[in-house]
Amino acid sequence: MQMVDRVHQLLSEKLKPGDRAADATMGNGWDTLKLCELVGERGMVYGFDIQEKAVSTTKERLENAGFLGRAKLFCCSHSEAGERIHENIQAFTMNLGYLPGGDKKIITRSESTVAALRALTQLLSPGGLGLVLIYYGHPGGNEEKEAVETFMKEMPSEWGEILRTEIVNRKNCPPILYIMEKK
Amino acid sequence: MQMVDRVHQLLSEKLKPGDRAADATMGNGWDTLKLCELVGERGMVYGFDIQEKAVSTTKERLENAGFLGRAKLFCCSHSEAGERIHENIQAFTMNLGYLPGGDKKIITRSESTVAALRALTQLLSPGGLGLVLIYYGHPGGNEEKEAVETFMKEMPSEWGEILRTEIVNRKNCPPILYIMEKK
Repeated sequence: MQMVDRVHQLLSEKLKPGDRAADATMGNGWDTLKLCELVGERGMVYGFDIQEKAVSTTKERLENAGFLGRAKLFCCSHSEAGERIHENIQAFTMNLGYLPGGDKKIITRSESTVAALRALTQLLSPGGLGLVLIYYGHPGGNEEKEAVETFMKEMPSEWGEILRTEIVNRKNCPPILYIMEKK
Repeated sequence: MQMVDRVHQLLSEKLKPGDRAADATMGNGWDTLKLCELVGERGMVYGFDIQEKAVSTTKERLENAGFLGRAKLFCCSHSEAGERIHENIQAFTMNLGYLPGGDKKIITRSESTVAALRALTQLLSPGGLGLVLIYYGHPGGNEEKEAVETFMKEMPSEWGEILRTEIVNRKNCPPILYIMEKK
């Protein structure tokens, strides 16, 4: 099973109609689409991406599915999540790396990534789920990976359980998935 | 969620009535009991433990549940799994460490553990699931952990996917769970 399929399966088990969720890195919009599907008509999904292209691709994808009414898309850094979202959320997704098919020079950066994680983990409601998928096979990827891994290790155990999941018998830096379950 | 609950959840998603399964380390018999419940009347569970006490505790537990007819319990090393099981299995569980409440000097050992893993991964049918839970906070535990981690990394990717799962924000050596999914 691909890690992205695992992410969608975990989201499906967690989210109910009417829930709130955030996609911290819209990219090509697949996670945003899945979140919109799961929260239903009465739910709300907050999407973030610093690239115009990602926002427009995602917008088009949601429009085609008839989901535009259940999403708010922001063309800004996910580190602004705390200022843009004014309610608790039940789940968030974050894919670290570069936009597939996009400009490989525009990558997520350690500082804003950790700031976003701080904001999103605070927005999560009890029982909420954070899914962070780290691709790190690109220049700068390792530095960001280390920053995130340190952040995860240092989260107080009272916050909840943080599970690190990795495929060990595959070459070429297979992604690492962090599953954050808030108490 | 405790790792042992995760193990039982994954088994519940995988096993169907009539399936075959193995518990490589019966210990107090909780995994054997769960496996017997899941494979049903027409299924079969093979249990292994080198300690008489583990075998008798497990036997009693199965008897009370009315499951004795669907299990074969062996008081021998799990490294003999290849000689004792003469059919494919759909899942196996293995808990590495010492028997909770038992003699802490009797622990699973790297050599027999790796031999057992070799045998059990060969017995798994396509789509089968192997769950290996490593407790390593005891003397000798770290050596066994390393041997298992090396075994896992060296499994050919053609065999299937090997997922390593660990809680990162908890002290005192929380267990590591390996999820092996055969292609």
